[in-house]
Amino acid sequence: MEYTHVLRGTAFTSRSLKEVAVLKDHLFCIDEQGMIAKVLRPEEAHLVDADIPITTLPEGQFLLPGFIDLHVHAPQWAQSGTALDLPLYDWLNTYTFPLEAKFSDVDFAEKVYTHLVDTLLANGTTTVLYFASIHKEASYKLAEICAKRGQRGLVGKVVMDDAQENPDFYRDASTAEALQDTEEFIVAVKELAKSVKQGVYPVVTPRFIPSCTDEALQGLGELAKKYDTHVQSHCSESDWAHGFVKDRFQKNDASALHDFGLLRDKSVMAHSNFLEDADADLFAETGTAIAHCPISNAYFANSVLPVAHLHEKNMEIGLGTDVSGGFSPSLYDNIRQAVMASRMLEDGVNPDLAPHVRGRQDSRITVNEAFYLATAGGGESLSLPIGRLEEGYCFDAQVIDTTSLPIFDATEPLEDIFQKILYLTRPEHIQQVFVQGECVHKK
Amino acid sequence: MEYTHVLRGTAFTSRSLKEVAVLKDHLFCIDEQGMIAKVLRPEEAHLVDADIPITTLPEGQFLLPGFIDLHVHAPQWAQSGTALDLPLYDWLNTYTFPLEAKFSDVDFAEKVYTHLVDTLLANGTTTVLYFASIHKEASYKLAEICAKRGQRGLVGKVVMDDAQENPDFYRDASTAEALQDTEEFIVAVKELAKSVKQGVYPVVTPRFIPSCTDEALQGLGELAKKYDTHVQSHCSESDWAHGFVKDRFQKNDASALHDFGLLRDKSVMAHSNFLEDADADLFAETGTAIAHCPISNAYFANSVLPVAHLHEKNMEIGLGTDVSGGFSPSLYDNIRQAVMASRMLEDGVNPDLAPHVRGRQDSRITVNEAFYLATAGGGESLSLPIGRLEEGYCFDAQVIDTTSLPIFDATEPLEDIFQKILYLTRPEHIQQVFVQGECVHKK
Ligand SMILES: [Zn+2]
Ligand SMILES: [Zn+2]
Repeated sequence: MEYTHVLRGTAFTSRSLKEVAVLKDHLFCIDEQGMIAKVLRPEEAHLVDADIPITTLPEGQFLLPGFIDLHVHAPQWAQSGTALDLPLYDWLNTYTFPLEAKFSDVDFAEKVYTHLVDTLLANGTTTVLYFASIHKEASYKLAEICAKRGQRGLVGKVVMDDAQENPDFYRDASTAEALQDTEEFIVAVKELAKSVKQGVYPVVTPRFIPSCTDEALQGLGELAKKYDTHVQSHCSESDWAHGFVKDRFQKNDASALHDFGLLRDKSVMAHSNFLEDADADLFAETGTAIAHCPISNAYFANSVLPVAHLHEKNMEIGLGTDVSGGFSPSLYDNIRQAVMASRMLEDGVNPDLAPHVRGRQDSRITVNEAFYLATAGGGESLSLPIGRLEEGYCFDAQVIDTTSLPIFDATEPLEDIFQKILYLTRPEHIQQVFVQGECVHKK
Repeated sequence: MEYTHVLRGTAFTSRSLKEVAVLKDHLFCIDEQGMIAKVLRPEEAHLVDADIPITTLPEGQFLLPGFIDLHVHAPQWAQSGTALDLPLYDWLNTYTFPLEAKFSDVDFAEKVYTHLVDTLLANGTTTVLYFASIHKEASYKLAEICAKRGQRGLVGKVVMDDAQENPDFYRDASTAEALQDTEEFIVAVKELAKSVKQGVYPVVTPRFIPSCTDEALQGLGELAKKYDTHVQSHCSESDWAHGFVKDRFQKNDASALHDFGLLRDKSVMAHSNFLEDADADLFAETGTAIAHCPISNAYFANSVLPVAHLHEKNMEIGLGTDVSGGFSPSLYDNIRQAVMASRMLEDGVNPDLAPHVRGRQDSRITVNEAFYLATAGGGESLSLPIGRLEEGYCFDAQVIDTTSLPIFDATEPLEDIFQKILYLTRPEHIQQVFVQGECVHKK
């Protein structure tokens, strides 16, 4: 197989849900398209042609797959970290909707989106599934910024057309316009994608069932089919949202979304905390994935997603920051929170209850599983060859410098160093980030 | 009042449990002892004598009190972030105790402790209550390093003398030796303190009841009284620990500790998740404080500390990282987790349960309250004049640079910027750290 350059170093990549492969001093051979054409063990180093340049990571630096963020509200970056003490209703109506409405101004959008894309890259996130706003132009601007900065962006123009359920200052002008704008947006991004090495994708994006009319949901399902796009929405996030859909359709979100043709192999539904087992089966059958957002869930989901249980049902699950329902732009923070939330689900939270009624047994996930969510799980959720440092995958990677981490023993096992990386890495330790073979961030 | 220099800028400091004062463009007048002699409003700027140097913070930089970390196991810094998937027993016996035993080597201790103290300062933490190890020399070395690096350190030589309950490779040689080493340690640190501007303090430190004999606990209570020292231990952390003490003494930790003279005004007990109301009253009566460690609790405490409930009972509560039961050296991370854990306690975690049985109502705390825990609450817990930017308090402060945070509106309210600081600050944003008027860290 042909390749144009080689990166040599020690890498960590998921072998399975629970197992992480430690590829000590391996050679990652990258082709012109930015794909991993070959992974060689150190004893195979001589197989590399003499004229191919090899870059070797310095001592103390390690390679991880780039992270995949399955849920970001791009305009909300401007309010990240604020107003989280408010109830959801106030958070949406006093802060979030007025802010999103400002993205009718494409210049403002460009400023916020550029800052966001750069911040996510600096946090090791190489692929992002974005909710933009209802505005076709600003949403397209986000796709352009991803294209230019080298991030793999999947971008949705948000649809929220129901005049009853959305404020007048922030909703689609009509159902017809919502669908037409979505179709034009899809066509434009597909055109843009032709010249973008790492890929950029349009996403059909009903905000969530409560904000859309039946006609809009139906029309969006048809557009997703017609253009074979990704689909994203929110599903069964909270007691309120779950109950609202049940009242309207006498069924759960999952069935309703399915009826509208919105559960597809390339569908990703945020949160999904209140999926019942039949809903989960529907997800598994259709290939629909969950974007698990453990930080955001602490504020707005009234519960913890039972990841261990859903993995047993063969669900595809990835990780999302949910900026700004989640305050952090970092999937490292969300890996940590995914582990902690699962422990809190297992042990329970209220010390006044007896242990056997306090928690939900067998719910904990390990840090390896949380790493899987942020990498391989995200890739499977999007049905893209990303999230693993393996042959046939895109070379999306981050180089972590561990020299300032608390490592005092030169013989410390690589497995322990991997755990320190996951628990202690901050942007200051992320030395370089690659997407599709190109260096897109350097400290 | 006399002062030698002035720092001018916008500061945030707790006014009460739930209220944060925004001191816009104020002048902090610092005296030779490093105390805040005067805080002036901008219109009082002319009151500063012409010969006193004034430093003005640049645009986009803000002043916060230095953070107070009430619970750090200093030797465990070397394993931070590892082995957290293990059950407590394996975590202690396979990882933690063998690691702590290595601190018989003072050179190794110096290396780890220097790295830790510098890391905590870089994270904005100006005062720390430390568990060292059982070793008198290495524990003294930690006090010396705090003295030298300019951190306010309260350090305990750990006592764990029970031959049944501790491994032979890591316990005090005898009860008598444990007490004698503790007394010598107290005397030595008190001597050291005479030449340390910011203060350094010896702390009586039984690891927790299960690891100590009655005689040791009794003797430590007497030493605390004789030398009027701070006291620290673990209290009612988990189902297991809570049950162990109940079996041994037919009473709860709090009562048992009180019987041994270990609940005093300067006592701080880590975790205390399973305090019953009578225990909490005992804490309140004696002035004993709680070191709340929300990250660590997710792994080892089987529950969430009901902070809102305990604040209603007038308990003193501060925040602890519990390195390395908690992976993060940052109190910012623990502020965030304190808020999230409280929300998860209020809403509950198991989506299969109905909302009214899932959670525990009125448990949430705001980010202002979590900030209080990390600052003023920590100061009250230690009975020291720290944790507030007010007259009569030590000038312990951190300067946060917000220029790379997502702030896109020049008129954004300072209250929102404060929330962004608490939710988004990482060490890269901490520009300078002051302890007792001295700059001890600069980016
Ligand atoms: Zn969302
Ligand atoms: Zn502890």
